[in-house]
Amino acid sequence: MSASLAAIGGTLGDIATPALVLDLDEFEANIENMQRLTEAAGIALRPHGKAHRCSAIAKAQLAAGAVGICCQTVGEAERFRENGIDDIFISNVIVDPAKIHRLARLAMRTKVAVCVDDARVVPLLEAAAREAGCTVEVLIEVDVGDHRLGIADPQGVAALARNVSNCLHLKFGGLQAYIGRAQHERDPLARRNLAYETGVAATRINDVLAATGIVCPRITGGGTGTVADDCDFAALTEVQPGSYVFLDVDYSRNQLCEKSVRFNQSLFILTQVVSVAAADHVICDAGLKAFSMDSGLPEVHAAPGLRPVRVSDEHVKIACGGVRPELGERLLLIPGHCDPTVNLHDQIIGLRSGRVESVWAMDARGASA
Amino acid sequence: MSASLAAIGGTLGDIATPALVLDLDEFEANIENMQRLTEAAGIALRPHGKAHRCSAIAKAQLAAGAVGICCQTVGEAERFRENGIDDIFISNVIVDPAKIHRLARLAMRTKVAVCVDDARVVPLLEAAAREAGCTVEVLIEVDVGDHRLGIADPQGVAALARNVSNCLHLKFGGLQAYIGRAQHERDPLARRNLAYETGVAATRINDVLAATGIVCPRITGGGTGTVADDCDFAALTEVQPGSYVFLDVDYSRNQLCEKSVRFNQSLFILTQVVSVAAADHVICDAGLKAFSMDSGLPEVHAAPGLRPVRVSDEHVKIACGGVRPELGERLLLIPGHCDPTVNLHDQIIGLRSGRVESVWAMDARGASA
Repeated sequence: MSASLAAIGGTLGDIATPALVLDLDEFEANIENMQRLTEAAGIALRPHGKAHRCSAIAKAQLAAGAVGICCQTVGEAERFRENGIDDIFISNVIVDPAKIHRLARLAMRTKVAVCVDDARVVPLLEAAAREAGCTVEVLIEVDVGDHRLGIADPQGVAALARNVSNCLHLKFGGLQAYIGRAQHERDPLARRNLAYETGVAATRINDVLAATGIVCPRITGGGTGTVADDCDFAALTEVQPGSYVFLDVDYSRNQLCEKSVRFNQSLFILTQVVSVAAADHVICDAGLKAFSMDSGLPEVHAAPGLRPVRVSDEHVKIACGGVRPELGERLLLIPGHCDPTVNLHDQIIGLRSGRVESVWAMDARGASA
Repeated sequence: MSASLAAIGGTLGDIATPALVLDLDEFEANIENMQRLTEAAGIALRPHGKAHRCSAIAKAQLAAGAVGICCQTVGEAERFRENGIDDIFISNVIVDPAKIHRLARLAMRTKVAVCVDDARVVPLLEAAAREAGCTVEVLIEVDVGDHRLGIADPQGVAALARNVSNCLHLKFGGLQAYIGRAQHERDPLARRNLAYETGVAATRINDVLAATGIVCPRITGGGTGTVADDCDFAALTEVQPGSYVFLDVDYSRNQLCEKSVRFNQSLFILTQVVSVAAADHVICDAGLKAFSMDSGLPEVHAAPGLRPVRVSDEHVKIACGGVRPELGERLLLIPGHCDPTVNLHDQIIGLRSGRVESVWAMDARGASA
């Protein structure tokens, strides 16, 4: 769709800005470290594709040993499937009949699981799976403290699990027990406590199910912030971190403790200085359409004197203390929040030792519906 | 690239969510009102394509009488040109030699103008235009109070204008005199004052140029917030509003006075209630990848009791006072900021009298480089 922003073998100076770039050494180390962490704990790793929406990255995660991938939308699942991913868990509730039919059609050709938190959706899923002649795996979305979606009452979860199990074309897959607010808790002990409480809440629900004879094939959840704790407590049987491949300013503010595992910043926005007309700042060519501002301003990589202070659609104003970048100079920005930043770009440019090694299509970008 | 999210003739209930939708009656009224306002003032209207990045919308603006369009990047200009737009002003500075060559190649086939605020860029533009055998129109980016990019000193502007005029393949096009911070000033008199001061600053520069024999073919600037004042003062000869076709929550907070012109909300994010598991809120399927949060939370259209309170990548939590939406119900959200929200979507679905009348490709979406 888009012309390539970079040629293989080129340098940073050859890349059209703004561009999403990936430090391949750090990226690969993050994948390897996450795989090693989860394998040591005996917990399945199912990385979250919502962080990247890029089948090349999903394939790198699978090649390292991940059991499959997560995504959040039927559109993402379709794009991942088209691009060769064949074990996909939509870690989200899907209620629209048309989307449920698309999901069932996907399940004819690949392993697909999805979540429910409302009994009225179960007959729609069953009818679509029957019509497609396939089996859809269904997990119950449980509320383990996020108070967003999901069922908190264990008896309610058990009733819904029985409901699913009674359907000929559905297979009860277990519990989706994710707690988003724990991921960005700054204090490592408070974060660990939230992860612990999530595990306790999920285990309590699992115990109620077990007491009524329902076996939970998996309990899945966790994210980049809590994954080391999740592996330590082992209440979850599967973790679904996403951001660890990239990191961002927000994750860098999570403090670590001796139980934590460190991942490194691999994702950057390459930008160029386009105006030095003012004395106290420079203007670069990346703005609201190059990085997301929901978690605050980006930072300039490896340049402590440079401070982004104001962002507009296509520009960021960078206050200069000490060294002042030149007109045309390229800077690397660390985005505030990786997932919605990555979703702005059609390509990610992989760099190693200062050279462009890969240009990957973000082939599930924009697939929100 | 993407499957269509809606079929012509369908209803809101048939559209896959989240989706960008356009109330065609309001959209057309906005275009007509802006055209009428500028024509009455004798000021050229060159709408800003950065707001929509959609050639179908640009064509609707041109059909109503706009003199051409603005954009911010060479990538946008290329996409607009590919899709039939032939008078394009890049109201931004471009300094990268590779981009300057792309720009000159575009100017071989269409009318292209661009801004400079640094003398070092002029020989690059001249060389590229000479090589392409074409003429590029160059405006001087002046700082009329935004303190972002641009030159504030009139003598500096005059020197740069002479520099441009001395180049065989460049044509001096005038002044780009935009003031972004005025557009969102809430108080209508304060906003009017900022527009006035912008006009005074631009006129002062123009007078210095005139005194040295330099004729300014146009003075362009203004935006949706100040356009009525800009038309009233007539210091600018061309205005470049963008958001007026859509509006957003942020613009709705601008107070109006008797000198103001009212535009109406035409842009919405269609979303669906996907969870009613909690007692005090519902969860809808639009989040950070469906609307931009740089200007704050979206609002729910025509539903005063419903209040978005928390946003994550794919969800918005909506607190319910009084009436509670049903599972599967569709709601229309008004985004906080239209430009970066529109840039998240590949399609915009036009609705009239509750029916889908058009599905337009956002064919310059993502063209930031």
